[in-house]
Amino acid sequence: MQVTVIENVMKLNDEIAAMNRAKLSGAGIFTVDLIGAPGSGKTALLEATLPRLTQRKQRCAVIVGDLATQRDADRMAKFCPQVVQINTGKGCHLEANHVHQGLERLDLAAIDVLFIENVGNLICPVGFDLGQDVKVGVFSISGGDDKAAKHPHLVVAAGLLLLTKTDLLPHCPFDMDLFRADIARLNPTVNLLRLSPRTGEGLDAWIDFLLAPRAAK
Amino acid sequence: MQVTVIENVMKLNDEIAAMNRAKLSGAGIFTVDLIGAPGSGKTALLEATLPRLTQRKQRCAVIVGDLATQRDADRMAKFCPQVVQINTGKGCHLEANHVHQGLERLDLAAIDVLFIENVGNLICPVGFDLGQDVKVGVFSISGGDDKAAKHPHLVVAAGLLLLTKTDLLPHCPFDMDLFRADIARLNPTVNLLRLSPRTGEGLDAWIDFLLAPRAAK
Repeated sequence: MQVTVIENVMKLNDEIAAMNRAKLSGAGIFTVDLIGAPGSGKTALLEATLPRLTQRKQRCAVIVGDLATQRDADRMAKFCPQVVQINTGKGCHLEANHVHQGLERLDLAAIDVLFIENVGNLICPVGFDLGQDVKVGVFSISGGDDKAAKHPHLVVAAGLLLLTKTDLLPHCPFDMDLFRADIARLNPTVNLLRLSPRTGEGLDAWIDFLLAPRAAK
Repeated sequence: MQVTVIENVMKLNDEIAAMNRAKLSGAGIFTVDLIGAPGSGKTALLEATLPRLTQRKQRCAVIVGDLATQRDADRMAKFCPQVVQINTGKGCHLEANHVHQGLERLDLAAIDVLFIENVGNLICPVGFDLGQDVKVGVFSISGGDDKAAKHPHLVVAAGLLLLTKTDLLPHCPFDMDLFRADIARLNPTVNLLRLSPRTGEGLDAWIDFLLAPRAAK
């Protein structure tokens, strides 16, 4: 019985995700689902990303998920007029239905790039389609060089992987060759970007990735 | 229907947890469930803890949960004769049944302190009783000062909170007063230990905490 219930939940999620995708794609919005551990630097990355995209005439919006607090939304509202915070209570991931509700609170005609900052969790968000164009997996130097190998489902599902907080490399043990080898074994075609909002490393390449779909039109 | 299924799952978990607790307590074992984000430093902390407890004539064992890989078990096997790695696949937390299976692979008569290193996740492990004596919540400096406020259920459920990687304080923005105030608001009685396996900060207090139940006997 439990299996049937879970199958039904996932089927309903996929149906709502398809509706989200149709809506977003119809509005010409490029949508990124950011998945990373708590403290991997997702919000700090968006704080650095939003003004750069604004400078490039891209209108951004953010849907951000957390169990509790409005803190991430408050941080990002300084850089972006359209931010929706979703508090999941005990829920460990965003589902398509959360995004569906979020979209109703956004002016889609005034958005070019939508970021969905998922609940800080390397596991549960991977299995839920939200209607995004791409899932981006966020690892960090301080999180350790074993995290790709320990989270193979995210590495496989990701269209791009980020390695943030490279400014901490001198202060944290981190075997870059091991980390890269684990990723290459799990997903030979995915790109890995090294990033640091504090030093600026990698931000140009990240912005280029976000602009590519629009540039191609 | 879904609610009934979830209630049944939790009821079964609690029954198995009670069996684990009776078994562990009958064998005079102090059991710690370590819950923290991926990369918060749980394994590094255990690598520093195990030899110190051995020196104090405590016989240790570890049950460690991860989606994939044997890496944590391999790291800890250098310091501890009894280590069981449990791979949960896509499972985002340990359940009482995992620990029940783990206990069958351990010689309980040769254990004083059992560590259960939960799957790296600040959310889902909180709700599952494993039969432990205490849940210990692990936060880190590099994880950011907002993580207690964002994970209130863990702060409330924890019998002790650890703040690891204090050696990174000079290199990471972290408002200690804010972090402490969030904890005090959510759980006024819980202690917070500042720790760094790299510098040794806080390790004596942590070892004292682990020895206290035995010292009291």
